Amino acid sequence: MTTVGEALSALCTPALVVDVDKVKRNAQMMIERCQKLGVQLRPHMKTHKTLECADIMTGGSRRCIVVSTLAEACFYADHGFDDILYAYSLPFDKVERCAALSERLDLFQVLLDHPQALEQLKKRPLRDGRRWHTEGVELTGIYAHCGNTYNCRGVEQIQAVAQETTSFTLQFMEKLKAAGITCKSSIGSTPSCSHPVKDMAQLSEVHPGNYTFYDVQQSVIGSCSLEDVAVRVLTRVIGHCPHRNQLLIDCGWTGLSLDGAGKLPTGYAMIEGHPNLKLLSMTQEHGRVEPISGPLDYSKYPLGSLLTLIPYHSCATAMMHPVYHVHSGGRLLGKWTPTRGW
Amino acid sequence: MTTVGEALSALCTPALVVDVDKVKRNAQMMIERCQKLGVQLRPHMKTHKTLECADIMTGGSRRCIVVSTLAEACFYADHGFDDILYAYSLPFDKVERCAALSERLDLFQVLLDHPQALEQLKKRPLRDGRRWHTEGVELTGIYAHCGNTYNCRGVEQIQAVAQETTSFTLQFMEKLKAAGITCKSSIGSTPSCSHPVKDMAQLSEVHPGNYTFYDVQQSVIGSCSLEDVAVRVLTRVIGHCPHRNQLLIDCGWTGLSLDGAGKLPTGYAMIEGHPNLKLLSMTQEHGRVEPISGPLDYSKYPLGSLLTLIPYHSCATAMMHPVYHVHSGGRLLGKWTPTRGW
Ligand SMILES: Cc1ncc(COP(=O)(O)O)c(C=O)c1O
Ligand SMILES: Cc1ncc(COP(=O)(O)O)c(C=O)c1O
Repeated sequence: MTTVGEALSALCTPALVVDVDKVKRNAQMMIERCQKLGVQLRPHMKTHKTLECADIMTGGSRRCIVVSTLAEACFYADHGFDDILYAYSLPFDKVERCAALSERLDLFQVLLDHPQALEQLKKRPLRDGRRWHTEGVELTGIYAHCGNTYNCRGVEQIQAVAQETTSFTLQFMEKLKAAGITCKSSIGSTPSCSHPVKDMAQLSEVHPGNYTFYDVQQSVIGSCSLEDVAVRVLTRVIGHCPHRNQLLIDCGWTGLSLDGAGKLPTGYAMIEGHPNLKLLSMTQEHGRVEPISGPLDYSKYPLGSLLTLIPYHSCATAMMHPVYHVHSGGRLLGKWTPTRGW
Repeated sequence: MTTVGEALSALCTPALVVDVDKVKRNAQMMIERCQKLGVQLRPHMKTHKTLECADIMTGGSRRCIVVSTLAEACFYADHGFDDILYAYSLPFDKVERCAALSERLDLFQVLLDHPQALEQLKKRPLRDGRRWHTEGVELTGIYAHCGNTYNCRGVEQIQAVAQETTSFTLQFMEKLKAAGITCKSSIGSTPSCSHPVKDMAQLSEVHPGNYTFYDVQQSVIGSCSLEDVAVRVLTRVIGHCPHRNQLLIDCGWTGLSLDGAGKLPTGYAMIEGHPNLKLLSMTQEHGRVEPISGPLDYSKYPLGSLLTLIPYHSCATAMMHPVYHVHSGGRLLGKWTPTRGW
């Protein structure tokens, strides 16, 4: 068992470690960016699913968040969060649970993308004088995730997509207005909100999520620099395989997501401080590492020595871990426990 | 919340469901196969990591198991299991925890594959008159996993690899014997133990793990038929995308492992009863499904309707779920909760 104040090397591996100072800085920069722009930030919880990080992202207000599962919605509601937007096309099997949350919270928002979903809501009227904002039909707002920013490379491309999505959304709002409907608008991904365009000020809110952790993918896109990435998977060398010019590490696909296969020259992750190493493949509890070129100098990687993986996709890798180890400047501060399930 | 006796359709999706009758049958057949052969079965827990399934695999004895992580070892030890083999090259960061387990259990076995690992053990002598079986050096046994059976197609190829691994192992035992060392031998994968060869009777024990659940991969290899596969991921249709000839389902890579990408014509899984459907891609909480050929008949897949995924790799998919829903003949019996972490 590790104790507060110990070095990261005290951890058994594999372990997901979170640099809380980077998390706070990334969160603060997003808060300031949105303030400067004059748009409401509604941070998405899907990347970390913890209370602690949600507090950092909401500046302690515990209001105005997005979630990707109803399990997250319930978890945050149970801990005093409110104004929760469940960013998922209303699942017909979860109408009752959505209704219960609507009756319990000041504001719980669900997405509808089909007339049948509206039918489902109408079949389950809310109690205590509450009502779905649909009878009539009243639209609360429109929601779009500019997921196509993920194909961008560099700020210019990101801003072109951000501009396009914003313009489409604003034009659509105009059309709705012409038809007598005024409502809110919420868009945004981590790339577009890391490099917002001016017109986004005309939106009601933006909803990025990945930005507190960031990851290699975001640095490749251009949302952040590698230095901004706040999460790592610590792993140890557990085998030398000179006949294959490879190392074995104690991180397999239970500790690092398979997401990102084939995307990086360094394989499933980047190995910090070792740009010539590639995480070639993983089994349940093992990773195979080889040099991108040349023979491996095993004296640099003794059995038991630590290696640090920067994940390709932090949402997918955080999801593999039942607990995150939080540190400041390499000294352990404690643990964050995410919620799981649906 | 679902209650015992309800139909599977009462579950919110995505949900991992386990057919307990198939689990029991698969486990019983392995027990009988090993008895007939005259070899000790030491089942591996890595696929499910639950107490309930461990009880089924050990026939209730709670003795003689293999684990893939120290977290599993502790979990099983805490619940009265003993004679636990930790099938992992001794990780230098976990020597103290291994020693504690050795002092606590009647028998706890670790693997050594390097002289430095021996040094590590010697630095931590056991208390209470116990000792590592190494001073001297005494070898308890040798352990091999015929993982190369995973490249086989059909019983003949599986048995060729099983024979080869068995012969190598037995020859090695002979050499050890000639050098004055007698020890145990443990080999086996789910493919080789599903179709054992006679010579395996000369081994001390076999250690398959996946066989209680099986999966599409095992059926492709030839270890089992698709009917033997005991696990499914239930999912629901949540969107129609006629402009792309696709369906959206509520299972993404948090509910089904990305392992197996590119291996099946039906994508990341097989969709039971719909051989023409392909699970093309997944995001965190969405799956995209399209027909292998022809236009999609949306009337067959109404919004909210259930689809049943047969996972490519059950170890990897079970690992994504915080709870498994257990049923008999489609009626819910309860939940199994796996252990996680390292
Ligand atoms: C519906 C929805 N909203 C918001 C987000 C947050 O975007 P990002 O992950 O780029 O921060 C996502 C991310 O997948 C999303 O799917
Ligand atoms: C070391 C070890 N032993 C035993 C097994 C069990 O084999 P199977 O998964 O084929 O049942 C595995 C599986 O990966 C393993 O890695």
